[in-house]
Amino acid sequence: MKVAIYGYGNLGKGVEIAANFAEDMELFGVFTRRNPDSLKTLSGAKVLSADDILKYKGEIDVVIICGGSATDLPTMTPDLAKHFNVLDSFDTHAAVPTHFENVDKAAKEGNNLALISCGWDPGMFSLNRLYASAILPDGKDYTFWGRGVSQGHSDAIRRIDGVKDARQYTVPIDAALESVREGKNPELTTRQKHLRECYVVVEEGADLERIEQEIKTMPNYFADYDTTVTFITEEELRANHSGIPHGGFVIRSGFTGQNKEHKHIIEYSLKLDSNPEFTASALVAFARAVVKMRSRGDVGCITAFDVAPRDLSPLSNEELRAHLL
Amino acid sequence: MKVAIYGYGNLGKGVEIAANFAEDMELFGVFTRRNPDSLKTLSGAKVLSADDILKYKGEIDVVIICGGSATDLPTMTPDLAKHFNVLDSFDTHAAVPTHFENVDKAAKEGNNLALISCGWDPGMFSLNRLYASAILPDGKDYTFWGRGVSQGHSDAIRRIDGVKDARQYTVPIDAALESVREGKNPELTTRQKHLRECYVVVEEGADLERIEQEIKTMPNYFADYDTTVTFITEEELRANHSGIPHGGFVIRSGFTGQNKEHKHIIEYSLKLDSNPEFTASALVAFARAVVKMRSRGDVGCITAFDVAPRDLSPLSNEELRAHLL
Repeated sequence: MKVAIYGYGNLGKGVEIAANFAEDMELFGVFTRRNPDSLKTLSGAKVLSADDILKYKGEIDVVIICGGSATDLPTMTPDLAKHFNVLDSFDTHAAVPTHFENVDKAAKEGNNLALISCGWDPGMFSLNRLYASAILPDGKDYTFWGRGVSQGHSDAIRRIDGVKDARQYTVPIDAALESVREGKNPELTTRQKHLRECYVVVEEGADLERIEQEIKTMPNYFADYDTTVTFITEEELRANHSGIPHGGFVIRSGFTGQNKEHKHIIEYSLKLDSNPEFTASALVAFARAVVKMRSRGDVGCITAFDVAPRDLSPLSNEELRAHLL
Repeated sequence: MKVAIYGYGNLGKGVEIAANFAEDMELFGVFTRRNPDSLKTLSGAKVLSADDILKYKGEIDVVIICGGSATDLPTMTPDLAKHFNVLDSFDTHAAVPTHFENVDKAAKEGNNLALISCGWDPGMFSLNRLYASAILPDGKDYTFWGRGVSQGHSDAIRRIDGVKDARQYTVPIDAALESVREGKNPELTTRQKHLRECYVVVEEGADLERIEQEIKTMPNYFADYDTTVTFITEEELRANHSGIPHGGFVIRSGFTGQNKEHKHIIEYSLKLDSNPEFTASALVAFARAVVKMRSRGDVGCITAFDVAPRDLSPLSNEELRAHLL
């Protein structure tokens, strides 16, 4: 199957690596909104102008859209779904229903299949919330994120006057995790679930006390959390905080038995050295499913919820049953 | 949807409780090979003779078969699949391909849909092996079982001369689990992964040393493991070992990045107070999917690999996307 990448940031690079590793896939090329001549790909995949993509209609089995959720994907995904089978990693949870409708309309118009919100949350975490709640309907779900870098929170710190650079880690609080794992079904406040660690590089002569206060009291981002602020040098930031790790936990605790006397804990966790490369790997597996499902006649918009797991694998159904069941 | 239970042991009772909890299901009744008059169900569900089940053809949407894998299911599931949509929890991994073929033929003959090998392993553990290997193809899978009661191993001990009763726990070894979680991709022997704890009640005057030796040297069951044998009284067995807990871990550790420089750990774990009731809860969720899929025209044999997760839930696709994605 011929796979194209649309957008070449960290996510697009991750897709390139993962698609090259897949023996049943051929990388058609990378489409960029930048000047194609200015861009050199990791694997030597050819670079094409995003403006020209319609010229390749019919030559590409699926386009993996590697844009941002805030401004790119809401228009990019429906626009491309009119002409290609597509996937995106749209992750603004509250806006999913609207995005779904727009993409569904466009994909049906073009007789294509589009999968949105692929990755780990939304994505693998969503799937685990669904499986666990279907099997243990009498229970409670908990999602914890981290330890990992939040790009949005790091950006928010960078916008503060006197800040040169910053890295923010979201950290799940052990005591909360443990109480969930023990099946105590606690009611947890925002502050009890996660804390926020900030590593901040400032301009020379900046007012450290003011910056720390601005961070800790920032509404939505930090005010509801226990937040630590550590000032470090640019060198320390580069040496110790250049990665983009992330991960987290989805835990469901539920009950069975005539008198709810039996407790069950289902836990799914991810510990990821590279958030974008893991998301990219999920996109590539689900791209395989999109191509298979489209070849069976499916069109419109779908999510990971609609994909039979066997379609994610390059193995045959017989091999899967013999070796993984 | 009308759900029938075929077989009324621990698993059948678990299905009864779970199906009664599901608002979209109605329990048609329990079919038993025993004398129906001798059997009283937990919820008052009506009891019918297994011999009469064909009389109810057309009145039941799905039959959940709660028999054993060794002797019941290999014939029971194909026989019933000729006349009803069915599910079973067939768990003899090596015999899955043969069982699948037999059930597939029968189900197609009867124009029915049959799902086999539902539960947690095979079942949820299989699904997690599949998802994880599709997303991280460059990696390694590990499955650990326990801490939990192994019925087969407990039975093997009970067959030893002088043994009145026994309970065997399979226990994953922490050091092995930790080394997998750290992404070290170790090669582990059988002995390094699990140990076996045996609690044994003996006849008066039995030769404890001989029994302990017979257990520890029993081929296939214990010889390849570090095994502890603890002799206890019947009262202690009843007081401390009457539950049927189980669980375990599926962990995949894999790599991404141009030079495989990024490590990722996916871990799925279950901690179950009641092995049969959890399996029953999985059967009930997948029974819902079987009915939905059959109503869309699917026939033949399938496994959990073939089920789009949305079909497991009583919620609509819109609700799932809005609340769980």
